[in-house]
Amino acid sequence: MSKLDDLFAFLSIPSISAQREHAADVENCADFLVSKLASLGFDASKHLTTIHPIVVAKSPSVEGKPTLLIYGHYDVMPVDPIELWESEPFTPEIRDGRIYARGASDDKGPIMALIHGVQEILAEDGQLPLNVTFLLEGEEERGSETLYEFIKDPAVQKMLDCDVIVVSDTGMADINTPTFSYGLKGLCCFEIKVSGPAMDLHSGLFGGAAPNPISALCEMIASTRDANNVVTIAGFYDGVMPIADWERQSWSRVPGMSDRELSALTGSRALRTEKGYTGAECVYARPTFELNGITGGYQGEGSKTVIPTHATAKISCRLVPGQDPQRVMNCARKHFEKVCPPSVTMEFFDGHTGEAYIIDPHTNYGKAAQRALENTFGTAPVLLREGGSIPIVAAISKTLGKDTIFLGLDLPDARIHSPNENMRVEIYEKGIELTKNLLRLMGEE
Amino acid sequence: MSKLDDLFAFLSIPSISAQREHAADVENCADFLVSKLASLGFDASKHLTTIHPIVVAKSPSVEGKPTLLIYGHYDVMPVDPIELWESEPFTPEIRDGRIYARGASDDKGPIMALIHGVQEILAEDGQLPLNVTFLLEGEEERGSETLYEFIKDPAVQKMLDCDVIVVSDTGMADINTPTFSYGLKGLCCFEIKVSGPAMDLHSGLFGGAAPNPISALCEMIASTRDANNVVTIAGFYDGVMPIADWERQSWSRVPGMSDRELSALTGSRALRTEKGYTGAECVYARPTFELNGITGGYQGEGSKTVIPTHATAKISCRLVPGQDPQRVMNCARKHFEKVCPPSVTMEFFDGHTGEAYIIDPHTNYGKAAQRALENTFGTAPVLLREGGSIPIVAAISKTLGKDTIFLGLDLPDARIHSPNENMRVEIYEKGIELTKNLLRLMGEE
Repeated sequence: MSKLDDLFAFLSIPSISAQREHAADVENCADFLVSKLASLGFDASKHLTTIHPIVVAKSPSVEGKPTLLIYGHYDVMPVDPIELWESEPFTPEIRDGRIYARGASDDKGPIMALIHGVQEILAEDGQLPLNVTFLLEGEEERGSETLYEFIKDPAVQKMLDCDVIVVSDTGMADINTPTFSYGLKGLCCFEIKVSGPAMDLHSGLFGGAAPNPISALCEMIASTRDANNVVTIAGFYDGVMPIADWERQSWSRVPGMSDRELSALTGSRALRTEKGYTGAECVYARPTFELNGITGGYQGEGSKTVIPTHATAKISCRLVPGQDPQRVMNCARKHFEKVCPPSVTMEFFDGHTGEAYIIDPHTNYGKAAQRALENTFGTAPVLLREGGSIPIVAAISKTLGKDTIFLGLDLPDARIHSPNENMRVEIYEKGIELTKNLLRLMGEE
Repeated sequence: MSKLDDLFAFLSIPSISAQREHAADVENCADFLVSKLASLGFDASKHLTTIHPIVVAKSPSVEGKPTLLIYGHYDVMPVDPIELWESEPFTPEIRDGRIYARGASDDKGPIMALIHGVQEILAEDGQLPLNVTFLLEGEEERGSETLYEFIKDPAVQKMLDCDVIVVSDTGMADINTPTFSYGLKGLCCFEIKVSGPAMDLHSGLFGGAAPNPISALCEMIASTRDANNVVTIAGFYDGVMPIADWERQSWSRVPGMSDRELSALTGSRALRTEKGYTGAECVYARPTFELNGITGGYQGEGSKTVIPTHATAKISCRLVPGQDPQRVMNCARKHFEKVCPPSVTMEFFDGHTGEAYIIDPHTNYGKAAQRALENTFGTAPVLLREGGSIPIVAAISKTLGKDTIFLGLDLPDARIHSPNENMRVEIYEKGIELTKNLLRLMGEE
């Protein structure tokens, strides 16, 4: 199949890992990858877990050459709000040189670019310049729970043994600016549920007397941030690695990342940043406290004058090197327990966590990757830290004792996690070329 | 049909006025009432409007006798959260002496008790002791929009001309305590929508920089209430009628309305009342600012790390005599415009409004109604103000220039507007007896 046919087939599978009703789609997606990689002569296998399968594929052995472990994820985010998509999220469509589909940039496009890079080298040279192992999981968007377990097995660690790890699940500054990321944010996700009366109440019969859980939840959330947009949770910033001067200088030159550009790109009236930091600095290197969802009471058409029994909020914090995700989550729990009004009860549900990650960008493999980027795009890459999180990556690196290098292909307007997610056809093709340059340069190390 | 068969047939019609998909059910419900009242010899007619029909039915003329206008509503509240109902909301079922169904107490049960009271008098005496006109609307739960228009028509005012108005859509203190309400709260409903970025954003790519509309909305809501649970909106309390000493004393003796009892009845950990007022005082005579619903971002299973584009809240204020609903709504709008963070935009949507209402409980008709209650329940009624609102009632009274008397049959545990709404069979039968006593006593005035 052509490189675009393969990608479209891959994108057509609604492998939403967070939603039970899509479990079969996620498994079909794993089967698709196994057969694709097997067709390239890889020893490809699907490893079933308690949630979603893990795909491992090893190239035919190339004696005396290093081994590159390529990590990626074939699962995708949910698609709501579905009504904002201009085309069906799982019916890929090209408009104005962009491929529109859920997963186009995060992370199916980059994975298929890596696979086709391998395929083209095999077609051109008959063999690979080094050993390649693919590790492709189906739970990244929901916390990689079973992969954490999987890599604890010594036999698995032997199977995944490598010299360096490459991940293509990060961003690039703009279409002309290749990007080498040397850090990722960590993450902790949690949910709070506030309960007032035991049943929905008529706001006339009991209003003014019964506690309102929505009001209480809003007050609790409002208490987490001060007028300078500094998070007020005790201990939240403990251990945060400060931003180096060279980083501030380098980041101030990243195209598209000025406060004015970020505001325009996001369609926001203005940015809302922590006092003393630019938007870029907040995204790359400051911890965040983000409300991802809130719900409570009546949300249908018209009005319903009730005092609801519950209100809940979904929250995620992006963390930086030096922060312990579990500790930050505990600080948040303590804060909410402290500010919860006595008339209501609060439940706190721990979600998934992941550590931040940072490497030295100047190792041999790091420099080879930077050369591969420069050869592909014709200009030297910018160095930055990612605002995004790939929690499992820190764990894999730590377990295997090898560095992970991030080669980003997601453009700022790729709308990953949002309606109308897309990838430029041009970037997909550059991704294939980058893979070929990367494998050939690393094969020389 | 038996009095219970009639009620069950009435309750089986899902006449939810707020939801478009139920428009035909609402109209069927009007047809049901027209044919029922016509079968009693009333001149019954269905008046179509731009939203839901209005039913008017006039008894055969009784010379030299006063005319009683009976107002009620045949529409009901939505049923969500549907999963909390123990039986189908529109399949009435008797358990432990209670009829469970949406509308059982609000307001179909009381309406059918009034109709069957009339039916029994006709069966016993062959004629009514006074003239009776029924005015039954299908939009009370959504704001009575078209009835406000309807009563502006002089021909309609002539058709509805009466000496006194009776409404049975209010509460009774407990099953042994007949209740005479002499006041109703007013109401204003509105919705605020906060918009941040132009599309849902990945919280890693833009978190810390892009404004979060959920955080902003929560901060704006939290700003409306101080530590004493006093509403901080400028002008909110302007004109509020103070509570008279005799009212405080009388209300402190209403069964079931102590703070401890209210807390137990609502299943709340504790009440949350305005400082200086009891729960009963807040419910009967203090204005409230109630969050009825809130929504924004991802609410499905698992987590989705987005910064959403919008967050909205549905709010209703219960108002007391002396407050102007439109003015209170304008004060709320000004407050939210003032506290809205500059990084987001806010839209404010006016909902329906209604004035509070209060009468002198000691008129002749008032005293007749209190006697009817005493004869029916064997004990003197308590006098109180309603926490609920029937916005149209103040308008009807004003337009026709006649007092409205409230005879409540809703028990505190009737769960009106909530899952498992119910009416005791015993109360339904008392309601029929009360109607007979009321008509006969008023016929003597």
